[in-house]
Amino acid sequence: MLKIDLSKGERKEVEEEVAEDRPIRLFLNGKPLLTLYATPSHLRELALGYLLGEGFLRGREEVEGVWEEGTEVHVRLKALHPPDPNLPGVRRKEKRFKASIVSKAMALLHSSTELFRKTGGTHAAALFTEEGRMEVCMEDVGRYNAVDKVLGWGMERGVDFGGCFLGFTGRVQEGVVAKCLRAGLPLLASLSAPLASGIRLAEEGGLTLVGFARGSRLNVYTHPERLEL
Amino acid sequence: MLKIDLSKGERKEVEEEVAEDRPIRLFLNGKPLLTLYATPSHLRELALGYLLGEGFLRGREEVEGVWEEGTEVHVRLKALHPPDPNLPGVRRKEKRFKASIVSKAMALLHSSTELFRKTGGTHAAALFTEEGRMEVCMEDVGRYNAVDKVLGWGMERGVDFGGCFLGFTGRVQEGVVAKCLRAGLPLLASLSAPLASGIRLAEEGGLTLVGFARGSRLNVYTHPERLEL
Repeated sequence: MLKIDLSKGERKEVEEEVAEDRPIRLFLNGKPLLTLYATPSHLRELALGYLLGEGFLRGREEVEGVWEEGTEVHVRLKALHPPDPNLPGVRRKEKRFKASIVSKAMALLHSSTELFRKTGGTHAAALFTEEGRMEVCMEDVGRYNAVDKVLGWGMERGVDFGGCFLGFTGRVQEGVVAKCLRAGLPLLASLSAPLASGIRLAEEGGLTLVGFARGSRLNVYTHPERLEL
Repeated sequence: MLKIDLSKGERKEVEEEVAEDRPIRLFLNGKPLLTLYATPSHLRELALGYLLGEGFLRGREEVEGVWEEGTEVHVRLKALHPPDPNLPGVRRKEKRFKASIVSKAMALLHSSTELFRKTGGTHAAALFTEEGRMEVCMEDVGRYNAVDKVLGWGMERGVDFGGCFLGFTGRVQEGVVAKCLRAGLPLLASLSAPLASGIRLAEEGGLTLVGFARGSRLNVYTHPERLEL
């Protein structure tokens, strides 16, 4: 790659790391379901999280098997249903989080995005316990994929999503909120902006949506009752 | 919206502008083609640019009519073909641009993103002449949509894309490069990172791909011969 620095009138050849995005084909019970452009790692988690977040399944007990073959990932479910179009609301309505813990968690997420620091080409999502412990952090060229990988990871391990919150680096559109509602997460915090559709769905579903979670500030767009000072 | 400032122990209610994203339904010759989540403005341009960039049409002479109905946009083509899967290479291989002009254009783009400044929720694309004059700048919640709107705008006005370059704020995946190749643009510059798929396709198609175009620096990932100091 050629680096041009006009202030120095300089042209310099340098090596630089670039984020890899590949078409990943997802198969459900033997049939091709869709192709995702994703960072080619954690494909099991990507597939399981995608299926959970889009309503194809509700929990790991429904999964018979999951395996990778190169850039293909195969999931076998015990019973195949069309995806459930209904979105559950947040189940544990009484759940509360400390604002200071969310704030520190987001600083931790910000400092944990290694692939982003190297390439500038990825988004990250992370699962935090209510004490602010980071259970897992996933980076991916697709912001939806990063969320899917975290949800898939959590589902495989039987994590109680209802007691956790999701940290995220991307803009929050309704698609991301829908994934959180299906997983049963009560709070989603992002370093970036929410979009109108994300706010609308979070309001309806009872999810607490935090945006621009930077430094010691949090913007709370919906259900602020769940955040304690 | 509630603003929490932990450093001051403060909770404050404030009004804030949020980027609007709506499902926009695109109809081709009377039939629904797809739904795009987009900022609901410039829907004609969005539809025409989408069709040009995805290979459904090659130029405005193929368009019989285009009209908006609320959040629907309808395009009628004189003849309907399946989208051409072949990507043309850059047609004007001899075209050259001054690095200093690209650099200044990107600074202008950066300072022109009004909706982003208000909401933090949008991407922008702009068309520049070889002298660095900004012909049009479009902002949209979807980075692909912003490019589509610029291409549609240019096609309707009969702009010679082969003599222009595209300025962009988003990460460059192969989908964006494909749109530029179909429109006939020889150079694409972004404020953000390229992804591996974008670099591969730009290399193959003969497009000059510039990333991280910030301040007086340009990273040139492919076909640097087109950039003159």
